[in-house]
Amino acid sequence: MRALVDAPRFQQFIIGVILVNAVTLGCETSPALVAEHGALLHAVDRIALAIFAAELAARLYAHGPKFFRDPWNCFDAVIVGIALLPTSGSFGVLRALRILRALRLISAIPSMRRVVGALLGALPGMASIAALLGLILYVGSVVATKLFSTVAPEYFGDLGASLFTLFQVMTGEAWSEVARSVMEAEPLAWIFFISYIAVTTFTVLNLFIAVTVSAMESQVAREHEIAEENQTAILLAEIQQLRDEVRGLHAADRQRQES
Amino acid sequence: MRALVDAPRFQQFIIGVILVNAVTLGCETSPALVAEHGALLHAVDRIALAIFAAELAARLYAHGPKFFRDPWNCFDAVIVGIALLPTSGSFGVLRALRILRALRLISAIPSMRRVVGALLGALPGMASIAALLGLILYVGSVVATKLFSTVAPEYFGDLGASLFTLFQVMTGEAWSEVARSVMEAEPLAWIFFISYIAVTTFTVLNLFIAVTVSAMESQVAREHEIAEENQTAILLAEIQQLRDEVRGLHAADRQRQES
Amino acid sequence: MRALVDAPRFQQFIIGVILVNAVTLGCETSPALVAEHGALLHAVDRIALAIFAAELAARLYAHGPKFFRDPWNCFDAVIVGIALLPTSGSFGVLRALRILRALRLISAIPSMRRVVGALLGALPGMASIAALLGLILYVGSVVATKLFSTVAPEYFGDLGASLFTLFQVMTGEAWSEVARSVMEAEPLAWIFFISYIAVTTFTVLNLFIAVTVSAMESQVAREHEIAEENQTAILLAEIQQLRDEVRGLHAADRQRQES
Amino acid sequence: MRALVDAPRFQQFIIGVILVNAVTLGCETSPALVAEHGALLHAVDRIALAIFAAELAARLYAHGPKFFRDPWNCFDAVIVGIALLPTSGSFGVLRALRILRALRLISAIPSMRRVVGALLGALPGMASIAALLGLILYVGSVVATKLFSTVAPEYFGDLGASLFTLFQVMTGEAWSEVARSVMEAEPLAWIFFISYIAVTTFTVLNLFIAVTVSAMESQVAREHEIAEENQTAILLAEIQQLRDEVRGLHAADRQRQES
Repeated sequence: MRALVDAPRFQQFIIGVILVNAVTLGCETSPALVAEHGALLHAVDRIALAIFAAELAARLYAHGPKFFRDPWNCFDAVIVGIALLPTSGSFGVLRALRILRALRLISAIPSMRRVVGALLGALPGMASIAALLGLILYVGSVVATKLFSTVAPEYFGDLGASLFTLFQVMTGEAWSEVARSVMEAEPLAWIFFISYIAVTTFTVLNLFIAVTVSAMESQVAREHEIAEENQTAILLAEIQQLRDEVRGLHAADRQRQES
Repeated sequence: MRALVDAPRFQQFIIGVILVNAVTLGCETSPALVAEHGALLHAVDRIALAIFAAELAARLYAHGPKFFRDPWNCFDAVIVGIALLPTSGSFGVLRALRILRALRLISAIPSMRRVVGALLGALPGMASIAALLGLILYVGSVVATKLFSTVAPEYFGDLGASLFTLFQVMTGEAWSEVARSVMEAEPLAWIFFISYIAVTTFTVLNLFIAVTVSAMESQVAREHEIAEENQTAILLAEIQQLRDEVRGLHAADRQRQES
Repeated sequence: MRALVDAPRFQQFIIGVILVNAVTLGCETSPALVAEHGALLHAVDRIALAIFAAELAARLYAHGPKFFRDPWNCFDAVIVGIALLPTSGSFGVLRALRILRALRLISAIPSMRRVVGALLGALPGMASIAALLGLILYVGSVVATKLFSTVAPEYFGDLGASLFTLFQVMTGEAWSEVARSVMEAEPLAWIFFISYIAVTTFTVLNLFIAVTVSAMESQVAREHEIAEENQTAILLAEIQQLRDEVRGLHAADRQRQES
Repeated sequence: MRALVDAPRFQQFIIGVILVNAVTLGCETSPALVAEHGALLHAVDRIALAIFAAELAARLYAHGPKFFRDPWNCFDAVIVGIALLPTSGSFGVLRALRILRALRLISAIPSMRRVVGALLGALPGMASIAALLGLILYVGSVVATKLFSTVAPEYFGDLGASLFTLFQVMTGEAWSEVARSVMEAEPLAWIFFISYIAVTTFTVLNLFIAVTVSAMESQVAREHEIAEENQTAILLAEIQQLRDEVRGLHAADRQRQES
């Protein structure tokens, strides 16, 4: 069973099914295609889901309880599981999430796994700055709601609207539109906006630098260390040969002394 | 007293109070919540303020005059102090600044302190380029006000408006809207805008690089230096052992000569 | 023939023809200039094309079948070939592509070749992250079409429109406009937009870092390695001189023993 | 004369005059201030100009013909010279450029000089990529004018308009607005816009990386090299002491042989 599950052929077949399923789910967004080939698209989707469920069951059987130790297996199980939930009523949104199955490509292709692993590995180093950014966003939103809720209710009407607007300002998107509409009523609002932009831009910049520096450390530094160790090895070999010669001299000296 | 103030339990209690207070101040932005639970929110705010004041007094008593040497203590004192100022009349804005108390989280959590310390540490290296950017902004604003104040009064009506508009152009936000509205009347205005964007983008880029390079220096370089010192230590140890052997040879030589 | 083709004079002449042709093709965009000097512009264009065709033929003759091994030669051949295709009917677009001949400047100037070569060399290292970004874009577009096609048909009407809109959101351009127009009907749509922006920004950032790190590796690291090898060479020379002296000692020792 | 010109006091006095003049030129943008204190502002401007002219004359006298070898002196001479040109008629724009005198702060403050020198030093390394970017912009503009001039004349009416619009698209500003207005008539225009954005973003990114890498090289690498040379010096000292001991051994050996 394990041999089957881990065979490259089997892996390639699953990748093929994921791709076909991704295409049919894309086709389902077109009412014209659904009207014409709806039954076919639906059938392919069912078959793909059945294959995924069978594959998961096979891998679960092959690897036993260790199956859930690999986070990628949990990822696969959750994504396939979504399709088994009821999709009627308020769960209608879940129908739209069936396409998440295409993300199984990530867990199925090793090079994609590695890229995503590297991305996730960069997250812990960002936690502190991200928390700081969240705090600034929250504090800014409470201040903005208090000050501007009556002046620009479409942007700062309540705390939720302010959080969204200040997230938008943080990305630099259409901030001048927001600021100008507030400044019409409150001419001094530029103090708030320019301070907020200066602080968040500087913090976001440092968030980016934290990621870059950690990427440098793990790649450039490592490679460099290897180069350096090679240089040290050359010197060490030379010094050790020298030591051997000195030892030879020593030995010859002792021999003579004894004779 | 000092033992109490520095106890982890006490620190955690204060962090808890800051979080609760941040939430209640957030709730105060909702008129519906204020109408229903206004008295409760107000009471929690009063209690939190009392706790902060008591904590500050305790720390001031415990540390004595050294208290104000730590800039984080001054930060805490100012933030708590804001709440004691009158909030009526023209000081109404200060009511909105009570949420700044949530920033005490930064001084209360050591990892946040370190992050903010690192951010502030990057500032001096940026001072020269920031001053240059400010000079470019000022010169550009005076030129733009002279040239475009009659053409586009909403953007360049007076020096203040021009400073705001050119800060906006510097962030790349809706600059084409500004430039196109000016160019309708002054077709050659593109020379001003494109030069200004080229110069400021290049300067801002160098501001960012200055921060990145200094972050590299302090992190990657340091780590690398340690790796290198380790390599040198390996070589040194080897050379010293060799020296010991040569000395042994020397000693044997002398001994023989004397005998 | 080969001497002619590789002569610097000949190369400079071709660069001159490319520049002149680029200018005349630029002039052809102005109806006023075409009305006045249309025949001249057309004649220059014909002559330039004839020169390019003759140059290609000469280089093909000079280098023989090896000609097509250099990708830059293929690039030249394709660009010149475009001008020989019919430009009537549905191929009218090809007339607009004649200006691509100006890109021959890249293959004609060695420093440009090197820059473009370096740019293309950075591509393979980006392949995995680019594929991941494409996958996220596709999955996001299918979800958005399913959820928002009736709410905002101008942005998410079909899969093509969604792909374009989400590419736009990925570049951070006017995303708040898109998000706000969807949120009017679906207030919870902010969850989709903020997750999408967070994920794509983070992935794009890592794409950029991948390029930066690889540029660092190939430039800074190499230079550094040379500096390090120089340091090692200094040490090696010193150790070898030491070894020579030890050998001298050894030889003297043996000589004495033999005598 | 030279002692006077190079005295720190004199330099500080000139910096003071530049700052005062920058402020009065800023005040001149306000019609209200000009109406009230116009004569005073004008007088200060005249006096400042006279001081600058006298300072330049003094420095020219003190340094002789070598004066123009320092590019900063030429910069000062040009900026002061602008004020002596006629400002009536079509030269009215030059009146607005009087504020450029504030840029003399850069040449007057050494740390600013160094920053600007570093910025300018980064330019040559960018020349090739900047030329490539210019070529892409030109080729893109000719293609866009040919294809879209009738469809969207406000953006692509003639070559000049296209160059401006594609520069705007390159900065990522409101590109979706441009693209959507063209795509209404030409649905396939997305191919042009997405290729153009992908190519220019990638090239601009590499322009930025070129600047960053060269900044790294000159700062981090240098510092690192010093650290490494220190390590090598430690090893060298150790090896040389060892060599001295071996020489001592050699000398003792010879002495014995001779005796």
